[in-house]
Amino acid sequence: MRRFISHKTINLISQTTTSSISSSSPSPNSPSLSPNSPLTSLLRFFSTLHPSSPDSMASDYSATPITMDNINPKVLKCEYAVRGEIVSIAQTLQQNLKDNPGSHPFDEILYCNIGNPQSLAQQPITFFREVLALCDHPSILDKSETQGLFSADAIERAFQILEQIPGRATGAYSHSQGIKGLRDTIASGMKARDGFPADPNDLFLTDGASPAVHMMMQLLIRSENDGILCPIPQYPLYSASIALHGGTLVPYYLDEQTGWGLEISELEHQLKTAKSKGIDVRALVVINPGNPTGQVLGEANQREIVEFCKKEGLVLLADEVYQENVYVPDKKFHSFKKISRSMGYGETDISLVSFQSVSKGFYGECGKRGGYMEVTGFSPEVREQIYKLASVNLCSNISGQILASLIMSPPKVGDESYESFSAEKEAILSSLARRAKTLEDALNSLEGVTCNRAEGAMYLFPCINLPDKAIKAAEEAKTAPDAFYAKHLLNATGIVVVPGSGFRQVPGTWHFRCTILPQEEKIPAIVSRLTEFHKKFMDEFRG
Amino acid sequence: MRRFISHKTINLISQTTTSSISSSSPSPNSPSLSPNSPLTSLLRFFSTLHPSSPDSMASDYSATPITMDNINPKVLKCEYAVRGEIVSIAQTLQQNLKDNPGSHPFDEILYCNIGNPQSLAQQPITFFREVLALCDHPSILDKSETQGLFSADAIERAFQILEQIPGRATGAYSHSQGIKGLRDTIASGMKARDGFPADPNDLFLTDGASPAVHMMMQLLIRSENDGILCPIPQYPLYSASIALHGGTLVPYYLDEQTGWGLEISELEHQLKTAKSKGIDVRALVVINPGNPTGQVLGEANQREIVEFCKKEGLVLLADEVYQENVYVPDKKFHSFKKISRSMGYGETDISLVSFQSVSKGFYGECGKRGGYMEVTGFSPEVREQIYKLASVNLCSNISGQILASLIMSPPKVGDESYESFSAEKEAILSSLARRAKTLEDALNSLEGVTCNRAEGAMYLFPCINLPDKAIKAAEEAKTAPDAFYAKHLLNATGIVVVPGSGFRQVPGTWHFRCTILPQEEKIPAIVSRLTEFHKKFMDEFRG
Repeated sequence: MRRFISHKTINLISQTTTSSISSSSPSPNSPSLSPNSPLTSLLRFFSTLHPSSPDSMASDYSATPITMDNINPKVLKCEYAVRGEIVSIAQTLQQNLKDNPGSHPFDEILYCNIGNPQSLAQQPITFFREVLALCDHPSILDKSETQGLFSADAIERAFQILEQIPGRATGAYSHSQGIKGLRDTIASGMKARDGFPADPNDLFLTDGASPAVHMMMQLLIRSENDGILCPIPQYPLYSASIALHGGTLVPYYLDEQTGWGLEISELEHQLKTAKSKGIDVRALVVINPGNPTGQVLGEANQREIVEFCKKEGLVLLADEVYQENVYVPDKKFHSFKKISRSMGYGETDISLVSFQSVSKGFYGECGKRGGYMEVTGFSPEVREQIYKLASVNLCSNISGQILASLIMSPPKVGDESYESFSAEKEAILSSLARRAKTLEDALNSLEGVTCNRAEGAMYLFPCINLPDKAIKAAEEAKTAPDAFYAKHLLNATGIVVVPGSGFRQVPGTWHFRCTILPQEEKIPAIVSRLTEFHKKFMDEFRG
Repeated sequence: MRRFISHKTINLISQTTTSSISSSSPSPNSPSLSPNSPLTSLLRFFSTLHPSSPDSMASDYSATPITMDNINPKVLKCEYAVRGEIVSIAQTLQQNLKDNPGSHPFDEILYCNIGNPQSLAQQPITFFREVLALCDHPSILDKSETQGLFSADAIERAFQILEQIPGRATGAYSHSQGIKGLRDTIASGMKARDGFPADPNDLFLTDGASPAVHMMMQLLIRSENDGILCPIPQYPLYSASIALHGGTLVPYYLDEQTGWGLEISELEHQLKTAKSKGIDVRALVVINPGNPTGQVLGEANQREIVEFCKKEGLVLLADEVYQENVYVPDKKFHSFKKISRSMGYGETDISLVSFQSVSKGFYGECGKRGGYMEVTGFSPEVREQIYKLASVNLCSNISGQILASLIMSPPKVGDESYESFSAEKEAILSSLARRAKTLEDALNSLEGVTCNRAEGAMYLFPCINLPDKAIKAAEEAKTAPDAFYAKHLLNATGIVVVPGSGFRQVPGTWHFRCTILPQEEKIPAIVSRLTEFHKKFMDEFRG
């Protein structure tokens, strides 16, 4: 990537460099750079290395047919802030720190931008990895050495799983919805969770939850006149997918004052407004627990939401990937399927799609790209179309499929791994709860910052009341005020957060999303660096 | 899946049942069924089990909002025959055989419909699986038992790979293009293959090659006025992806008479025709070795193709996933990158995307969903847009990424695994070559059938000169004549092939695609069953 983001990165570095050099009183946030400073050399490095430097770029590629003017405008429109500009700068700084240690006021980049626990040293759950390894290389299953290396229940589980895979072939394309035996296991796990049956034929296993979301958007969106109700703030996969499929995101605002409450009156208001503009609203996205907002919906609220979808003829798209990440004793996760069925709504009463992923939970197996959706309340003919969409990519990866079955059927009391598994799980979840609370308290102690608690998920989404002078400076730098704040934070501390504008927010308010994932021993340093930075930032811009 | 394809399946079974019952002289292809026959019970089983049987279906789902009339019409338009109707029938028959052994004139279903070697008992390459297992569960790397279970070079390779992964975290999202160290390895392998350097920053690792193809179609297609030149016959991923993205497939016909030759005059003719209809042709898809056609392009022909794309300003989309599957001594695979560079065309002269996959080759690791594309000749700004598309789904699965690096850097002379690896590779490839030749000869011995040789890939695509009576019978059954043939073949022999109409073909000609993948010991039975069936079919329909 470094190569072709170089243009943007160079611009950003140039901006920083220029503005700092011209500044008479350099602040720690925008360090003044000499012509021999590491950032300047980096800039020079980029310019010399790549023939496609800003100056020569246009002419260089003039003989090739594809330009920014003739690519699909939907692609241009799509945005994905979680891996956007700030992360590009962070990667450049990280390389810079590696090449020139001591060149910045921090010695490492602290990635709080993405829910990627294992990138921050969280260890995988042992049982899951034992089973995956054995399924990858089944010929060791019968060897005596294997008994010494793997737990007995992992070996047994690997045998069971291989039995469920036609021909024990973990290297074969599977059924396009996923291996039937694994779907059976997942359906049993869902039944145990909800108290209502799940049909394995309703499950579509996918490479993480993202392709499942795309599949539903592809099915539902015909043109820009088709709208999808999405929470604001939202996880940018939704805005990106809606943009790519050419639909319209119909926003509904979560109420920050009531802990990111989801008000039915707001849904009604936004639906009515959209309809008056000729938008055919087709579905409602609900993210529970919330991303980036961290709230966990109450049961009564969930019933209202189901009722709203039923009444208005909307598909309920329930993003439930954080179902195992709940940190407060007064809240509990309930699937929308359980809520709907407990209200007496059956298969043919309401169209409901639930997304789940192996990337989240306490296991955080992001790199395995496992996930699934449960599709209920669609006619057989429409389901056949969803199946066709799944079949075009043949199937999702088998390790991800196996892992999806494991998260829904972990070791049980009496299994050899049960105690160590439970200990690993408990250690991660309780530590996440402590980290969430510490960061929440720290954020709330900052001038002009308010932060709702992270009841669930992996994020805090504090509101920053930015001084006018900072907003003006951001305008001059042609960047959103929260991005301005986030860039200064990064440059001063190495802490990477995502500006609230990447998730959308009530106009005129500014936020950032910060994960609770850095390892617990790093949290005090993050708190003190953030606190110190914030004070200086406010001092500089208080006006 | 079984559930929601039941409607179609029931219709198919009903058709078969009805037509056979009314027939006074039942043929072996359409067995006469008593009211207590297994197929009839199956039909009854479907009707009772699912409330959504044909009769009640419409009313059942009338309370739900999504219907065939209001889903995205692009989804309706998309077709994917490799997993279509014939495969659904085969799955039903397979279940049927399991529940009622002896109920059909065959005792197993022989899947020749899909390039899925491990589903047909091909064993994975040991070295690859050793490395994958060790990367999945790195904590066993240092244990003494591991030495007894794994080869020394697999252990060493796993250590190397883990070193390349930031934090050794195989469970973390990676860079959206894939782990940099693995891309370095792949780029080295490409350089060794081509004699020209490859830039790791040009590589985008994906979950199999399919998502890479979709990404390029998404970038290039703005509306139905954008056309993509595709070979006919083609692999239906292309027609499906173009349909889903709302573009126009501009066909160019391969010349069956000259062994599926790719004539530049045909490209010119079709380009001109498309332009005259107002189509903006943006890219040329070339599949080499060919799917479903099995030909391997000659070097001179490849140079003409590059020149054509250069002259006409087309992106060359080179599907090179069968690069390791070449079976004839007089042909050799050359990448289009190598051809372009050897012609003196550099990075800024031609836009070229090459697709590669771990699913094909001799290793056939379809279920691992590994693959990549090499993107050259696009400006940095456009590349940034491709990166953005990749980043929306975060990254491809890490096991697939690791495997992609392994196929491009297999064990070398002197490595402990080298000999066993080479033996496994040679055994698979030489057996595939023998199977291809045996099946090709068998097909060519059938009345009215001609079949080009499979120089590469995994398929034969014979032309069947169907008798008028068969074509008429197919019309009456409202099915394409080659699908009619394929269904009869399946019902009589259990052999599953894909009708040529799924790949498109010269109008008025009929083909089917048959893989060369069934295990070698099953080939004689396939040949004799096919020969016997074909004779009876021709006897029945010769007229």
